[in-house]
Amino acid sequence: MFQKILILGAGLSAHYLLDYLHTKAQIYTWKIGLSDHSDTLLEQKRHQFPMLHTHALDIMDSEEALKLFHEYEIVVSLLPAAFQPLVAKYCLQTQCHLLTASYLPPEIKALEHKVKDAQLFFLNETGLDPGLDHLSACAFIAQIRKEGGEIQAFRSFAGALVAPESEDNPWNYKFTWNPQNVIKAGQNGMAQFLKNNLQQYIPYWQLFQRVQPIEIEGLGSFEAYPNRDSLKYQAAYHLEHVKTLERGTLRRPGFSKAWNLLVQMGLTNDEITLQNLTHMTYQDFTASFIKMDAQKDLLQNLKEYLKITDQEDLEALQKIQWLGLLENEKIGLDKATPAQVLLHRLQQKWNLKPQDKDMIVMQHQIEYTKNEKAYRFTADLYVKGEDANHTAIAKTVGLPLALAAELLMQGKIKVRGVHIPTMPVLYKPILAALAEQGIKFKEKTIQI
Amino acid sequence: MFQKILILGAGLSAHYLLDYLHTKAQIYTWKIGLSDHSDTLLEQKRHQFPMLHTHALDIMDSEEALKLFHEYEIVVSLLPAAFQPLVAKYCLQTQCHLLTASYLPPEIKALEHKVKDAQLFFLNETGLDPGLDHLSACAFIAQIRKEGGEIQAFRSFAGALVAPESEDNPWNYKFTWNPQNVIKAGQNGMAQFLKNNLQQYIPYWQLFQRVQPIEIEGLGSFEAYPNRDSLKYQAAYHLEHVKTLERGTLRRPGFSKAWNLLVQMGLTNDEITLQNLTHMTYQDFTASFIKMDAQKDLLQNLKEYLKITDQEDLEALQKIQWLGLLENEKIGLDKATPAQVLLHRLQQKWNLKPQDKDMIVMQHQIEYTKNEKAYRFTADLYVKGEDANHTAIAKTVGLPLALAAELLMQGKIKVRGVHIPTMPVLYKPILAALAEQGIKFKEKTIQI
Repeated sequence: MFQKILILGAGLSAHYLLDYLHTKAQIYTWKIGLSDHSDTLLEQKRHQFPMLHTHALDIMDSEEALKLFHEYEIVVSLLPAAFQPLVAKYCLQTQCHLLTASYLPPEIKALEHKVKDAQLFFLNETGLDPGLDHLSACAFIAQIRKEGGEIQAFRSFAGALVAPESEDNPWNYKFTWNPQNVIKAGQNGMAQFLKNNLQQYIPYWQLFQRVQPIEIEGLGSFEAYPNRDSLKYQAAYHLEHVKTLERGTLRRPGFSKAWNLLVQMGLTNDEITLQNLTHMTYQDFTASFIKMDAQKDLLQNLKEYLKITDQEDLEALQKIQWLGLLENEKIGLDKATPAQVLLHRLQQKWNLKPQDKDMIVMQHQIEYTKNEKAYRFTADLYVKGEDANHTAIAKTVGLPLALAAELLMQGKIKVRGVHIPTMPVLYKPILAALAEQGIKFKEKTIQI
Repeated sequence: MFQKILILGAGLSAHYLLDYLHTKAQIYTWKIGLSDHSDTLLEQKRHQFPMLHTHALDIMDSEEALKLFHEYEIVVSLLPAAFQPLVAKYCLQTQCHLLTASYLPPEIKALEHKVKDAQLFFLNETGLDPGLDHLSACAFIAQIRKEGGEIQAFRSFAGALVAPESEDNPWNYKFTWNPQNVIKAGQNGMAQFLKNNLQQYIPYWQLFQRVQPIEIEGLGSFEAYPNRDSLKYQAAYHLEHVKTLERGTLRRPGFSKAWNLLVQMGLTNDEITLQNLTHMTYQDFTASFIKMDAQKDLLQNLKEYLKITDQEDLEALQKIQWLGLLENEKIGLDKATPAQVLLHRLQQKWNLKPQDKDMIVMQHQIEYTKNEKAYRFTADLYVKGEDANHTAIAKTVGLPLALAAELLMQGKIKVRGVHIPTMPVLYKPILAALAEQGIKFKEKTIQI
């Protein structure tokens, strides 16, 4: 049993997590702390959650951070992924357990022995995706196995999108979460998955051309592009003998074809810095990434460079035009990477309006055989947000993390070391609690 | 005037450099040292060059390295690019001047003040390309300016290839230099150049599709793909006001289209490690990087995935077939990155036979106006090797570096700090000495 929990980061993703843990803190008389570098955010949260101890903190200031961590037993870090290895280091030094929603980075994985020796529990990937995907996948896989099913194929898809009633642009997409992650999607290494016993490796520049259609009952059509390295979950999910293992990111149909044009041009590059942007227009910017025939206008050049031939290609190009990347309008930045220029423009076009509702969708597909018959199990999850400040994504990232923290605080997790949430001791109570909050999969099994 | 010079690295590139400096060492009674991690190589060189002091050295062993550097005044490093920052650090600690043929890395650039304060001279990029390209470009630019020309466009192309009589494969290419650099060409950041006043940024996956044809008198047709960041030489070459500034790498026509297929598939990726290669064939390997329709064979799948439509595409695909990447033959590696598997195969196919001759070609094109007339100046360089052990590339990398070292030894270079060879004090004597060795540009000026 623990009594003292510290949350790092008071931004976008904090609301539902704070709300849940603050209520529990009142019941169990926990000490609950919140740190952020922004005093304004802390002030605001203190107002909303009176039991909170708030601490202004620059996480890079190790002296201050260590002093603060010493006052707590469990740290929940909502900081961006890049900071988690540093947070983990502080946790080791101050004997704190750690929970995050970020992908388990190699730097934290490497701490496995030290974490175990210190009798600590570092839980990673416990948000939505990654997070709820692991929890639910492992639960469904275990259930099918228990009933005697032999699993042949596992596919899992998830996306953070806008709800149908707020789809009002040609991309059917808006930023509902960290925009940086959208721009950089797929830029780390190659995507890897297993398909019909063949390992597949997809470089970044093919990723958005390798989509597959996905239907979700009641929500219509989507497309999925491969999501990072699916194979690294093969052992964690106990799927060593499957023929197919794929994880994908969901978008509305047509998104990937248009995004691919931006990738092909190089506009998502975050490595080189363009100087002297002050007088540059979006038109100039775009022209710098294609081969320009001075006799033709930018649109015509784009059509030729990007080999726009059929109606689908044309619709993809129209999405680029809709972003205003062909307009004679000043960018308004001094120096920036191509990705930063693109982000700047996207934030003007893909912003969530105050009344916009977001949605998260997830689908698992499990093919298995039982008594010489073949089945396809499907589980769909659909959660809709309330408005731009109460999003489905903040809820589905925050609650799994909050629930895992509660279990740990209550002494219900005895395992130690570095983990992702694939154990029954986590997925059983967390999925049950989420279902009470209306976050529940629709399951269906058909013979195939 | 200095007396003691140490050469690091006794490999491929050392012969001509050692030969030149050893002769000078005899004349001037210099102490000349050579270090390498391989005793065999040192033994062999000691046999060939009796005045050499040889030192077995693991460059990562800082204690031994510093002890050795203390015995010398000037260090010429032929080590791979990745080691140069470490070598530079040792040089600073032991008060040694440094010369290399490697691209100036940011880590060495950052030492500028320390190097100047220590009254040292660190000369980078003094091989062939980079190296002889800088030396000759700066000489030609200065000459045109002196005669009153106003430069509008500068283009420079270079390639290390096989001599026409040894072109006996469909790629018209063999490894004549570090094969790693060939596999990784273009993978660092975006290529950048200036064309008709428009800055151009090219991502890796477009690089080998952005080729231009180049003719070299007496040698026939080539193609050039953009070489790294050309813009970073704009100031160094004093070309701030040109409309066009391009640097490119030369290959025989058709090379880039075929190489592009490998890039598109992701076979040049050096970041992910493939496990369990032991039983894998080249056929399986290739299939892992494309979308496979099990109803069709690998060749047919490749044609569809790579959108092979016309005769040129088909010839590119035939080059891939010629490499044996579609063959049912074991790879023979345990675990490796895709780039390592590709390299393994290429080294079987693109190896230089003992009697093969290599060649280096370089062409500068300078467009300028003078007295209201427009001119195009062209300078071509062609150097042919003798055989696989006496290559043109080793000569044209080694001699500029050896000549720069001689100038420094003789006290003829007074400037200090971190440099690349763009100053008259270097290019005048070095180009004159190279001309004596038969390494001489053919110049031509036509009115346009």
